[in-house]
Amino acid sequence: MNKIKTNALVLQAGGPTAVINQTLVGIVLEARKYLTCKIYGSRHGIAGVVKQDFVDLTDYPADKLELIARTPGSALGSTRDRADDEYCKKMFAILKMHSIKFLFFIGGNDGASNCGIINAAAKADNYELRVIHVPKTIDNDLLETDHCPGFGSAAKFVASAFAGVNLDNASLPGVYIGVVMGRHAGFLTASSILAKKYPDDGPHLIYLPEKPFNIIRFVEDVKNVYKKYGRCVVAVSEGVADEDGVPIAIKLSKQIERDAHGNVQLSGSGMLGDLLADEIKAKAEIKRVRADTLGYLQRSFLGCVSETDAKEAREVGAQAVRFAMSGDVDGSVVMRRAGDYKISYELVELSRVAGGTTTMADEFIEGANGVTQKFVDYIRPLVGELPAVCRL
Amino acid sequence: MNKIKTNALVLQAGGPTAVINQTLVGIVLEARKYLTCKIYGSRHGIAGVVKQDFVDLTDYPADKLELIARTPGSALGSTRDRADDEYCKKMFAILKMHSIKFLFFIGGNDGASNCGIINAAAKADNYELRVIHVPKTIDNDLLETDHCPGFGSAAKFVASAFAGVNLDNASLPGVYIGVVMGRHAGFLTASSILAKKYPDDGPHLIYLPEKPFNIIRFVEDVKNVYKKYGRCVVAVSEGVADEDGVPIAIKLSKQIERDAHGNVQLSGSGMLGDLLADEIKAKAEIKRVRADTLGYLQRSFLGCVSETDAKEAREVGAQAVRFAMSGDVDGSVVMRRAGDYKISYELVELSRVAGGTTTMADEFIEGANGVTQKFVDYIRPLVGELPAVCRL
Repeated sequence: MNKIKTNALVLQAGGPTAVINQTLVGIVLEARKYLTCKIYGSRHGIAGVVKQDFVDLTDYPADKLELIARTPGSALGSTRDRADDEYCKKMFAILKMHSIKFLFFIGGNDGASNCGIINAAAKADNYELRVIHVPKTIDNDLLETDHCPGFGSAAKFVASAFAGVNLDNASLPGVYIGVVMGRHAGFLTASSILAKKYPDDGPHLIYLPEKPFNIIRFVEDVKNVYKKYGRCVVAVSEGVADEDGVPIAIKLSKQIERDAHGNVQLSGSGMLGDLLADEIKAKAEIKRVRADTLGYLQRSFLGCVSETDAKEAREVGAQAVRFAMSGDVDGSVVMRRAGDYKISYELVELSRVAGGTTTMADEFIEGANGVTQKFVDYIRPLVGELPAVCRL
Repeated sequence: MNKIKTNALVLQAGGPTAVINQTLVGIVLEARKYLTCKIYGSRHGIAGVVKQDFVDLTDYPADKLELIARTPGSALGSTRDRADDEYCKKMFAILKMHSIKFLFFIGGNDGASNCGIINAAAKADNYELRVIHVPKTIDNDLLETDHCPGFGSAAKFVASAFAGVNLDNASLPGVYIGVVMGRHAGFLTASSILAKKYPDDGPHLIYLPEKPFNIIRFVEDVKNVYKKYGRCVVAVSEGVADEDGVPIAIKLSKQIERDAHGNVQLSGSGMLGDLLADEIKAKAEIKRVRADTLGYLQRSFLGCVSETDAKEAREVGAQAVRFAMSGDVDGSVVMRRAGDYKISYELVELSRVAGGTTTMADEFIEGANGVTQKFVDYIRPLVGELPAVCRL
């Protein structure tokens, strides 16, 4: 193999996942096969570029990298900064100073959007910078790819949580409402379906942001399930919105917080769950009503990793390097599924991924409060088997 | 071994744990060695007794019992009912009808209290009923015992959660507040300390119900940590109370819910976390502030079990049967610790456990917002090793 004499930079952006460091390590180890020069990591994403806060990963011990790969969170640190022309100018000055030709950008949809901006600015500047977007997101809402690294492990967390609370709720019957991350896409909330083993298991109702949420109908739904089973477990997305698309959590919020990408902050508050629980207590005359907001544990809990997700997160990093070395290309790495279950990797143009998101297909959604067997078939291989449970 | 011709009943009460079914199975399998007659389980604790809702476990397949042992939640169902004389009278009519001489009562402090009431009522009635309280509680607040089955697994969940959010918080710096179960005893909140590996890891502040909580001091504490590390992870007990002992969550609550034992409902709401986050946003001028309430996942999450806890939960059930068969005794099974680390089992009088609870010893608490190395040494063997984490 002819080693290429040039430097590479890798960074992590947006919300961390349980396996985002697998991707980092996949990139670093694969890049070592091709490059004779430096492999840098930028601390806290593009923010670390303008601050020139780099860590040299060229000769970083492989055994320590393997430990880091299995550690949740973004080992390099992350950021939600948004790049613009001014930001790019500052970045390019530093990148050029370090003779960086390859930028491996591990990120979600905001990350892909930043990649598009950086790529366009580099072209305008005649700077030969290859920008490769390497996907990660627990939301599973990236365009083009079959699914996203990080989602399978978060889905495993959600399924394990609901499998447990279903058993807890059966022990001490009542209504349980679990609020799950996902601003526009319901994939993670829908993953709670894997908690069901027996037909009367919860979650009995699953509310996705893809379908308008009506609080009067919600109370009726809960009452009906409670009447049937003497209990009710509900999975609801933090992003559920009314007919006009206004998130229920926002309708009730005193203060609204937005990040640099204009996203409204929904996580990190128990408000939506508390509101829904109060509605049930008031309108359904059911005494034992509990609400939990699964929160940041979904993307960081130590020890809850899908093996498939970990393997694919590593591979997507390695593949990113192979694509980058294959010629003068920019793009986003996507995963294609064949049969049950094989994954292949492709590089698609950044414009096909940047600036858009996907939501759950109609064929995955059943009515106003459920998901289909097709969805179960879609996520099962991504999550893997949960520990066996049994009832008397 | 001379088998005793008499029937036994086992039941589960109070909040479920991840390993409460280990105890159930421990009792059933051990009782089979001694009894020639029936071993019944009561559905939903003492409520199932008055309803005569029994399941016959005498010949229940052992392989299925092993699966149930590894399933979180109370397989028999639970209740928070409180026994009184009238309740006991109804129970005894059913118990006598089924020739039950042994009652194995798996429960926490309210369960121990019920055992005391049932035992006294049986004596007054000249009913030869042997009452054995078999401990379980994630709160770890039972008197006499070194620790309680169920606590180690819940503590592992809390430690794994904080290990993850610490890494997440390091990736995207800000303030993170995690609210942990525990009405009066801080053991579970304090267990978050096991998340720390490096000196600057979170949780940086740990607030226990054993120490008065002052919200002005809390804001100052967070500001100081944030100034030092650029981030702050806080573990706070749901039960933290002011100087007068009034829980902070209650001070702000519109409606107060109590169970049959008079306990105020604190879990199942994100209110305390949201209030504390709002205080920090308003008073500390820190923008990124997130609060999660760990909620019911702490006692039910599928796949987060301490091996030591599972083993001890099984053994405490088996020991309960052996004590019951040793003579005409009633009592509560307790665990004694020797060295580092060996457990022996004793039966103590019900009165020594019923109607009281314990909290964290002073030697486990450091100042207003921390725990000691002694506490770490106390819980480490109960929780076991967490997956290794590593930073760059």
